[in-house]
Amino acid sequence: MNKNEAAKTILKTQYNQQPINENGEAFAPSNIALCKYWGKRNLELNLPITSSLSISLGDKGAHTSIEVIDSHQDKIYLNNIPVANTDKFAHRITKFLDPFRTTKKLAFAINTKSNIPIGSGVASSACGFAALTKALNNLFGWNLTDTELSILARLGSGSACRSLWHGFVKWEAGIQDDGMDSYATKLNYNWPDLRIGLLLISDATKPISSTNAMLRTVNTSSFYKLWPQQVAHDLVQIEHALQIKDFQKLGETAELNALAMHATMLTSNPPILYSTPKTIEYMHKVWQLRQQGLGVYFTQDAGPNLKLLFLEQDLKKIQNTWQDIIIITNEHKS
Amino acid sequence: MNKNEAAKTILKTQYNQQPINENGEAFAPSNIALCKYWGKRNLELNLPITSSLSISLGDKGAHTSIEVIDSHQDKIYLNNIPVANTDKFAHRITKFLDPFRTTKKLAFAINTKSNIPIGSGVASSACGFAALTKALNNLFGWNLTDTELSILARLGSGSACRSLWHGFVKWEAGIQDDGMDSYATKLNYNWPDLRIGLLLISDATKPISSTNAMLRTVNTSSFYKLWPQQVAHDLVQIEHALQIKDFQKLGETAELNALAMHATMLTSNPPILYSTPKTIEYMHKVWQLRQQGLGVYFTQDAGPNLKLLFLEQDLKKIQNTWQDIIIITNEHKS
Repeated sequence: MNKNEAAKTILKTQYNQQPINENGEAFAPSNIALCKYWGKRNLELNLPITSSLSISLGDKGAHTSIEVIDSHQDKIYLNNIPVANTDKFAHRITKFLDPFRTTKKLAFAINTKSNIPIGSGVASSACGFAALTKALNNLFGWNLTDTELSILARLGSGSACRSLWHGFVKWEAGIQDDGMDSYATKLNYNWPDLRIGLLLISDATKPISSTNAMLRTVNTSSFYKLWPQQVAHDLVQIEHALQIKDFQKLGETAELNALAMHATMLTSNPPILYSTPKTIEYMHKVWQLRQQGLGVYFTQDAGPNLKLLFLEQDLKKIQNTWQDIIIITNEHKS
Repeated sequence: MNKNEAAKTILKTQYNQQPINENGEAFAPSNIALCKYWGKRNLELNLPITSSLSISLGDKGAHTSIEVIDSHQDKIYLNNIPVANTDKFAHRITKFLDPFRTTKKLAFAINTKSNIPIGSGVASSACGFAALTKALNNLFGWNLTDTELSILARLGSGSACRSLWHGFVKWEAGIQDDGMDSYATKLNYNWPDLRIGLLLISDATKPISSTNAMLRTVNTSSFYKLWPQQVAHDLVQIEHALQIKDFQKLGETAELNALAMHATMLTSNPPILYSTPKTIEYMHKVWQLRQQGLGVYFTQDAGPNLKLLFLEQDLKKIQNTWQDIIIITNEHKS
């Protein structure tokens, strides 16, 4: 099954119907996985080998608007600035939109406004494709369910399927070849005191895309075969920690899960190491603070940046240690 | 079985006999594992969970002299400077010597002269205990075989059993509870062009001893269960590389083996990370040089320092990149 067929399966009788509105728009929050998504069982459909669990980043995310235009090709804007169609970012959006072109000549203008630093490893593609999916739903008037939106968003970027809600979200890996059982749902936990701190280490360029890094890990890392077991264990721990609001357990499990993911990369051939000297400096700092009794943990995605987990009560101490930290309140008044 | 009983088993009828000389002395080279020793199956006897393979560091090592003295306690010197008996270094030596005291009042003076930086993570305890074992053999006139010396040296420090020879050495883990089948032997390979470069990152203090780090890894790392498989695979690869002088295969396997060891530490709870920002900087530099076509690989032990593997033909390029690098020629004219 390809992306086009997957979209057809979701849209059913609405497939190939014209947009009912002139434009559609929507916001989607970015998200950070507390239990990581690492490894695809289907590259075309972004089907994961394991389930994953994330926390959304409140009002940090993407606001996307889309309209039908009279043109032979899409017009892509990022924060109101035109992006060349040859650009990778534009190309991904155009490819994602292909299944929804009711005629070959149907083109779109898309403007993605993001309030998180692009390429900062804070899942900008996740919130981007989630917002675009919701905007499309409005443009065409599909009235899709959250589950259906989650499946469509996944076709753009795997982790996008987790960006349709605020709070805690779980993406079930599913087992079907067509991916119709691989979507996210909002979990019924809330934790108003929980804070996320973004430590951006900007001067580093990604040595390898996350898709390619996943491929190499799955194909060459001798430790990857234990990753599904690790995830199964960590998901139970994290859900339990959310349930009883055990911050230490949450932080410890999330940190170990991230380190395990990076350990599978480190044992790939050639090795993959997203960490820079600064990343390592901050890791040691986190551990040092913890030894001094402060409740702070980190998680790290396919990039050098660290994301800290801590409680509101320790905000001042965290800000005193890292002046440039970006604080995120995951609860969102909407 | 304890250390005393192990020593008794080795020395047989010579156990408890008086020294036949007034003093004994010996040199032993340090060694670096190309396939690491990580994890003990017996803490008291330093019996490893897996076999390992090392390269000795030529004339870098320890020269140790020992004599019987008329005193109620040992006198320990490091590079001719007295060390307090309460010091950890002195305490380990005194404990190691206990099985060989023919009377309770028998005390020794030991002077260890080392030409490698102490605590630099270049196996100073390995060459120290190997040299001490050989010096003891001379002092007492035991005439032990290399195999017997290797077993005795192992009681002082696991990797010391590999420091009795120059060149490439393999330590067979063995399966017996008494460790009588757990000793090293010299491998019949030589590689005159092979060079080792020590990159010392001196400003870092070890956050945890290697013995404690091994314990924590074995007890808590979810990835450790794959370590024995990793070693079994890597030992075959390394021996084959040595046999056919395939430098790329040797370097690649040694580097991945070290990274796998550190990956098991990273997934311990709490995580163990010996790398400092400088370590990570140098790792990325090695990979960058390799992408530019230079044949250079690293290995890393329980500390922040990196040890580079390269061929004599590339010495100049390596020295141009790292001015402070210590170059080691593993072949030893003796």
